[in-house]
Amino acid sequence: MTKNTATLLISCPDQRGLVAKFANFIYSNGGNIIHADQHTDFAAGLFLTRIEWQLDGFNLSRELIGPAFNAIAQPLKCTWQLYFSDSIRRIAIFVSRQDHCLLDLIWRQRSGDLAAEIPLMISNHPDLQAIAKQFSIDYYHIPITKENKLEQEAKQLELLRQYNIDLVVLAKYMQILTPEFIAQFPHTINIHHSFLPAFVGANPYQQAYKRGVKIIGATAHYVTADLDQGPIIEQEVVRVSHRDDVVDLIRKGKDLERVVLARAVRSHLQNRILVYDDRTVVFE
Amino acid sequence: MTKNTATLLISCPDQRGLVAKFANFIYSNGGNIIHADQHTDFAAGLFLTRIEWQLDGFNLSRELIGPAFNAIAQPLKCTWQLYFSDSIRRIAIFVSRQDHCLLDLIWRQRSGDLAAEIPLMISNHPDLQAIAKQFSIDYYHIPITKENKLEQEAKQLELLRQYNIDLVVLAKYMQILTPEFIAQFPHTINIHHSFLPAFVGANPYQQAYKRGVKIIGATAHYVTADLDQGPIIEQEVVRVSHRDDVVDLIRKGKDLERVVLARAVRSHLQNRILVYDDRTVVFE
Amino acid sequence: MTKNTATLLISCPDQRGLVAKFANFIYSNGGNIIHADQHTDFAAGLFLTRIEWQLDGFNLSRELIGPAFNAIAQPLKCTWQLYFSDSIRRIAIFVSRQDHCLLDLIWRQRSGDLAAEIPLMISNHPDLQAIAKQFSIDYYHIPITKENKLEQEAKQLELLRQYNIDLVVLAKYMQILTPEFIAQFPHTINIHHSFLPAFVGANPYQQAYKRGVKIIGATAHYVTADLDQGPIIEQEVVRVSHRDDVVDLIRKGKDLERVVLARAVRSHLQNRILVYDDRTVVFE
Amino acid sequence: MTKNTATLLISCPDQRGLVAKFANFIYSNGGNIIHADQHTDFAAGLFLTRIEWQLDGFNLSRELIGPAFNAIAQPLKCTWQLYFSDSIRRIAIFVSRQDHCLLDLIWRQRSGDLAAEIPLMISNHPDLQAIAKQFSIDYYHIPITKENKLEQEAKQLELLRQYNIDLVVLAKYMQILTPEFIAQFPHTINIHHSFLPAFVGANPYQQAYKRGVKIIGATAHYVTADLDQGPIIEQEVVRVSHRDDVVDLIRKGKDLERVVLARAVRSHLQNRILVYDDRTVVFE
Repeated sequence: MTKNTATLLISCPDQRGLVAKFANFIYSNGGNIIHADQHTDFAAGLFLTRIEWQLDGFNLSRELIGPAFNAIAQPLKCTWQLYFSDSIRRIAIFVSRQDHCLLDLIWRQRSGDLAAEIPLMISNHPDLQAIAKQFSIDYYHIPITKENKLEQEAKQLELLRQYNIDLVVLAKYMQILTPEFIAQFPHTINIHHSFLPAFVGANPYQQAYKRGVKIIGATAHYVTADLDQGPIIEQEVVRVSHRDDVVDLIRKGKDLERVVLARAVRSHLQNRILVYDDRTVVFE
Repeated sequence: MTKNTATLLISCPDQRGLVAKFANFIYSNGGNIIHADQHTDFAAGLFLTRIEWQLDGFNLSRELIGPAFNAIAQPLKCTWQLYFSDSIRRIAIFVSRQDHCLLDLIWRQRSGDLAAEIPLMISNHPDLQAIAKQFSIDYYHIPITKENKLEQEAKQLELLRQYNIDLVVLAKYMQILTPEFIAQFPHTINIHHSFLPAFVGANPYQQAYKRGVKIIGATAHYVTADLDQGPIIEQEVVRVSHRDDVVDLIRKGKDLERVVLARAVRSHLQNRILVYDDRTVVFE
Repeated sequence: MTKNTATLLISCPDQRGLVAKFANFIYSNGGNIIHADQHTDFAAGLFLTRIEWQLDGFNLSRELIGPAFNAIAQPLKCTWQLYFSDSIRRIAIFVSRQDHCLLDLIWRQRSGDLAAEIPLMISNHPDLQAIAKQFSIDYYHIPITKENKLEQEAKQLELLRQYNIDLVVLAKYMQILTPEFIAQFPHTINIHHSFLPAFVGANPYQQAYKRGVKIIGATAHYVTADLDQGPIIEQEVVRVSHRDDVVDLIRKGKDLERVVLARAVRSHLQNRILVYDDRTVVFE
Repeated sequence: MTKNTATLLISCPDQRGLVAKFANFIYSNGGNIIHADQHTDFAAGLFLTRIEWQLDGFNLSRELIGPAFNAIAQPLKCTWQLYFSDSIRRIAIFVSRQDHCLLDLIWRQRSGDLAAEIPLMISNHPDLQAIAKQFSIDYYHIPITKENKLEQEAKQLELLRQYNIDLVVLAKYMQILTPEFIAQFPHTINIHHSFLPAFVGANPYQQAYKRGVKIIGATAHYVTADLDQGPIIEQEVVRVSHRDDVVDLIRKGKDLERVVLARAVRSHLQNRILVYDDRTVVFE
């Protein structure tokens, strides 16, 4: 007996009977649904759903689930993804010099809150190598300049392949990935240190201070070719006042960045996120 | 063609196939589900769900939906409630002297945010009669003393029957309903001016000030025979500091009370709340 | 004996002894300080302070306080403003068609939370005239077109003079004031229905929906010649999800707009706001 | 030239001229005030203030500041404390088995956000010894039973003396200190994993789940002889829903506990907290 589950993330044109058809597929094969959530975007005419069921007692072998479901999904014009809870994802963390998001992710992974492995760190600086060593994570120092960017990204991509990485987390990487990189490795989550779309680009805390805002935020999003324009996964804010200078904003912001990035990575690892039309549905 | 919908709120012992069976019931009768949400309380062994579908094109007449569904529900040991979106609920608002929650509810009802009628106001004070008149709501001044409480509550209950009331909202009523009242009219929502279970009972802002808390809250809950112990529907908080004296807490708290009570009433009117085991599931 | 107070709001180049000099001025004339707060912007080299003291027992007559303080302030190159708590400010509210901020301001003024008079409403639409009448506020319907804007603003300015208005509150006015208007009447607070600087301009909720943000906000600011660029006084946010469509964002946003605008107007009326360098200091 | 500052925290019966007298003391001795904040509790008749000034250019030597100020303070019946910014406080962290608050405090201290030394850890369990070693902190495993509590606390107190500890932080220590301990070492901050005064005592997350609250919180407070009744320094909350079981509450709560405890310790180290009447004033 096992606690393992399978999860389907499905998008398709809205139409009658979708909930019934998907639920029947699980039930008629002996599955016990433990989570089912759905969302209909009426404007877009789209139905999106997440269904998770126990594999214990399910009559289809893992290899057959996909093909069997596809027989239902194809006539309905669905796109879908299938995940198994015991297939542990592998994360590469990209960093620059700041360690707060990195340490936070490692702590959560060690404490069991993030079901993933972290075998690889990549940085344009050598500063955080000691942390990598301490936690037995391989560390590659790949300095980036304007001139060598594509070439160095090729090395990064080669490492992602070599380490069999499923997800890249930019934990304050402070470098813009090229569209070429993103085309080749689309599963990347970034933490931007502002309440997007306010303060796109560099030095958002400096910008926020100058604008005199009374609240600052942080935003985790999937990385796309447009800088800071990718689908937003999670945001959080904290109140500030005239007493807070830029240094205070940075300090308060770090607490936001840690928690926002961690929540986004956790939702991704639990297969709770569906992206469509530059937006996310995050099933709870 | 109509935009009317039907909603089922269902609780039953957890078991395989529930999602499929309920969805099939809707689909096989030609219904289009526009909202389906579920929750499993594994500890309690309970499955709870809310299903809403369009009546347009549904093959069962309204009178038949209940009996037809019961044929499915009974073998599964479900308890269930059925609602129609065009059956507008009737609210009685109980008040004392404070008008902020009352005016807020009326404004929301007038603006279309609360789909309900408000034909009746009952108060132990005459103060808010002018507001009732202005909005053409019948107002009954029923003063309560220790001695006449049961007798006066009998008058209140008679009015609830007479006006065909579905829901009582205690909008700062400042009186404790007797168990007898609650037994006869169980659909009552109260706003308590604290972050329950902190500061049960009288003068919560005074208590909060004395305790020196840094955050205050408000709580909307269903009324049960135990004072301030009913199932919590919604809570909200706001930060305070040493600069806030009791008057400030009361002022800040009013903004909380208005919004928390309104959210709770709205969730109730949209049939989003299931109560079990002194807790609520509020489907979003 | 009186509870009246005087308040000085002072800005000057930072230098030694400012707190002592200002406090001595009050003390040596027999005043009892009940609130003193200060802020130093080290980058700007500016000292900003708010001092409030009881007039009861103060030895200088009201007419003499300004001149006497100026003898201290001038050598220190201070700019300053002097207010008396019993000099009730007069507010004109500009509206279009939406009533939620208007009703909220009126309710707070009636309940004593906003120490001000509201003798005047101006609108480019006739819709809210009934509310004005109900609360005995004079209402002027002054329709604005591209062609007649300056001319109509001249009428508005004439009304502000005639009614002796101290503060204009744009309670969802939905019109851009010309630089000419602002030059002639600079004391104007606007509520913008987004978390500025995100979503400047028209239809911010539509923009927020399209961008897929997980939190929305509202911003109260002083109006300057640059659209939505004026000094921010107050902001507040609320969480949203994929389940919220534009109509939901608007509904949730209304609750933010009400409370943010009210807090900003209250801070202004209590002389808690100092503006410098397109920023505000809001003393608490 | 130095950036060092002195800070006075002063409480005294409210009376005319206090701001002037204290500011004059600094100014007449050549000091430049960089932060002055005050609070008057009118009900208690108390004036509380925090004044920080630059030591550079101040004419009194450090040893003389106290006696000189006392000459002013005594006739006014003030109690006061004097701190110097370069006198780094020494913290002992008490832990049980959970590491999240501990690691967070260490990270903040290492990153410079907490100006303190952490030479000592004490635990009733051996579990976190490896972390102590990694950061070169001395670790003492002092198991507590009902029978040996006073005796073991004597050992703890001896260590506090030996290591010259200024502040004890209970970072999820999960043990109740005896009144005897608290009498001997009163400077102790605890993190309680609930929104006090809700859910005093053991298993607050279990209690919160059972009560069905929609928001959970964490509270940092000074430790007094009454369990969980000490003066509250800081609180923070996070929204939860029916989907969150006890494990989720614990996980979400950890993020609260970390940030609330860190803020409280930081405020204490910056001498921003005045305690009176079981309440705190936290100057910002």
